[in-house]
Amino acid sequence: MRAVVCHQAELTVEDLPDLVPGKGQILLQVERCGICGSDLHARTHCDETAADVAELGYDHFMRSGDHVVMGHEFVGTVAGYGPRTRKSWPVGTRVVSLPVLRTDAGVHLTGLTDQASGGYAEQVLVDASMTMRVPDELDADAAALTEPMAVALHAVRRGQVGAKDTAVVIGCGPIGLAVIAMLKATGVRHVIASDFSPGRRALAGQMGADVVVDPAEESPWASFAESRRYLTEAIALAELGLDAMDKLRAVPMLPWAHVMRAAEKVGATPRGPVVFECVGVPGMIEHVVANAPLLTRVVVVGVCMGQDSFRPSMAINKEIDLRFAFAYDPSEFHQTLQWIASGKVDVRPLITGTVGLDGVADAFADLADPERHAKILVDPSQ
Amino acid sequence: MRAVVCHQAELTVEDLPDLVPGKGQILLQVERCGICGSDLHARTHCDETAADVAELGYDHFMRSGDHVVMGHEFVGTVAGYGPRTRKSWPVGTRVVSLPVLRTDAGVHLTGLTDQASGGYAEQVLVDASMTMRVPDELDADAAALTEPMAVALHAVRRGQVGAKDTAVVIGCGPIGLAVIAMLKATGVRHVIASDFSPGRRALAGQMGADVVVDPAEESPWASFAESRRYLTEAIALAELGLDAMDKLRAVPMLPWAHVMRAAEKVGATPRGPVVFECVGVPGMIEHVVANAPLLTRVVVVGVCMGQDSFRPSMAINKEIDLRFAFAYDPSEFHQTLQWIASGKVDVRPLITGTVGLDGVADAFADLADPERHAKILVDPSQ
Repeated sequence: MRAVVCHQAELTVEDLPDLVPGKGQILLQVERCGICGSDLHARTHCDETAADVAELGYDHFMRSGDHVVMGHEFVGTVAGYGPRTRKSWPVGTRVVSLPVLRTDAGVHLTGLTDQASGGYAEQVLVDASMTMRVPDELDADAAALTEPMAVALHAVRRGQVGAKDTAVVIGCGPIGLAVIAMLKATGVRHVIASDFSPGRRALAGQMGADVVVDPAEESPWASFAESRRYLTEAIALAELGLDAMDKLRAVPMLPWAHVMRAAEKVGATPRGPVVFECVGVPGMIEHVVANAPLLTRVVVVGVCMGQDSFRPSMAINKEIDLRFAFAYDPSEFHQTLQWIASGKVDVRPLITGTVGLDGVADAFADLADPERHAKILVDPSQ
Repeated sequence: MRAVVCHQAELTVEDLPDLVPGKGQILLQVERCGICGSDLHARTHCDETAADVAELGYDHFMRSGDHVVMGHEFVGTVAGYGPRTRKSWPVGTRVVSLPVLRTDAGVHLTGLTDQASGGYAEQVLVDASMTMRVPDELDADAAALTEPMAVALHAVRRGQVGAKDTAVVIGCGPIGLAVIAMLKATGVRHVIASDFSPGRRALAGQMGADVVVDPAEESPWASFAESRRYLTEAIALAELGLDAMDKLRAVPMLPWAHVMRAAEKVGATPRGPVVFECVGVPGMIEHVVANAPLLTRVVVVGVCMGQDSFRPSMAINKEIDLRFAFAYDPSEFHQTLQWIASGKVDVRPLITGTVGLDGVADAFADLADPERHAKILVDPSQ
């Protein structure tokens, strides 16, 4: 099969032996595979990630000296079954799978290790227990978005965002845009999105954001705070028996937290916003902690590598909640697939390009420009 | 009145004018006031805290050049009422109050600003709406612990700890010890406590910890992990339809998170432990993130000043939840007082000394030795 091999941060198309499905595995003919931001990062910084992941007990994450076929956001058609599989679907059936493969040598992360070849290739192996049939009405382009959209659904669930809560999405790259779509799909009424890029801001609007903010001009925190504070404060003051609203406002620290909690008891929804940090560069956590209102819940989806620093005392003063989100479970993956198929979530605006295997190296470079691209799909038949 | 004044990090006993209760205020004769770790810190580092708090909109936090009477963990007897108060209790009634005072010049943090004199003094002013009568059966020593115990109750609530969850308390200073007591009072069955100090470990046992660990000899994480993993893994594998338990265990990263969530769905309680970080020095958050199991919820109670650094990518891989906790609300303060009065929470082991106003400066120094002291009370009548 033809495949894109990453070695020493170089991406080259090579002819590799055809894959043979093992016990419990299915062989897929790859139709599309999305290029993920974490692949861009892994190409040049995988050794750092490998060290972190080894601490967790997984010693096979790709290293720069390995020869790895990346790609974990794939859709394909069934091309063959390994031993001890149910053969539930005819050859040619379109399926997606969680990128986790059991082999005789252990369980591996498809497309992020040399132990389980990924989707930038004509073929990929999947675990039968992790594979789902794509509904007939869904084409390969949209189905390829299942994996990143599932990441977003999981992040939204981690945030426990209520319909009346205000969500603030910081960073409108592919994951930020996916989070916006999933927030709207789960019924959240007020979604504020923020990105420096005009192109990304336009996409944020297409994905359903209610307010789109250029952080160079205005703060996403301001649009949240102005609309909510006064009502809840008035309710809460009545509850607490405090009459001196003007005086109270001068001390947002301790009493303000009381006010918020008291307002909750009388049925108001005075909680801070739920923030989705989808940038993942050093300093973003401190930025959110420094700028967000009291009692803000932050779901950290953007992966910041290495050490990052912030002020815990400020997080304590504001009672911030930092929830780190990773991946999804099989039921979230399945739910996402159904929502894309039913049209509840429209992933089309995310897809800004398609390339063949020969175009993958250039696509990795092109994705650095936020004005040009969000998600590029690889079509191995091109 | 006699009072301990902090100025340029020096604590001296001075004769100050008697306090006069203003509108909505009550004058108390102080019976006891606990010395809080945050006072030790504020004495020498208040300028740093003042800068943080000013960012939140409160511009009157004590600075090193101010003359401040500290002390916010006080109990006293009613000595007089200001205008527009209900005069609910006879003079001499024992009361406690949240350390928040409304004045004509705004709302202030009692004992942490020169705008609202604190409890290291013969007298203190309190806000009538924040004041609660101490039940008759409760003496002044135990009642003085209401404030720090309320901090602990709030932290436990922030952690949403279930009776079947395992709680891990890192650091057994006064707040860590208070958290242990509140965890047991709220019915948590398995509480693991960890501290380098033998004296503090002995107190942790007295406060109710089920397992007490010396981190120099064994890890608090090990005692959690061993007892729980295998059962939940077996349940979850059945649910997921995965049979290769031995292989799965080799990759605790992605599948393990799935396993935990799947086990939850079948009614097991496979969540990671709830950790209470009660140390508050740089590096503790990274320590917990690096060592805790997947899906751990961390309540950060220890106040770490300045910048602190950790690895967000590791927190993401493990789906850590960092919940920062601050203070309490009036209902938690009231609940705490009732629990101390009823004996549901026994605060006596915490009290390791009592000094007069003249002994406060030495007591601040003595509290540096964890073998000698946990909580020292100030009795202004001594």
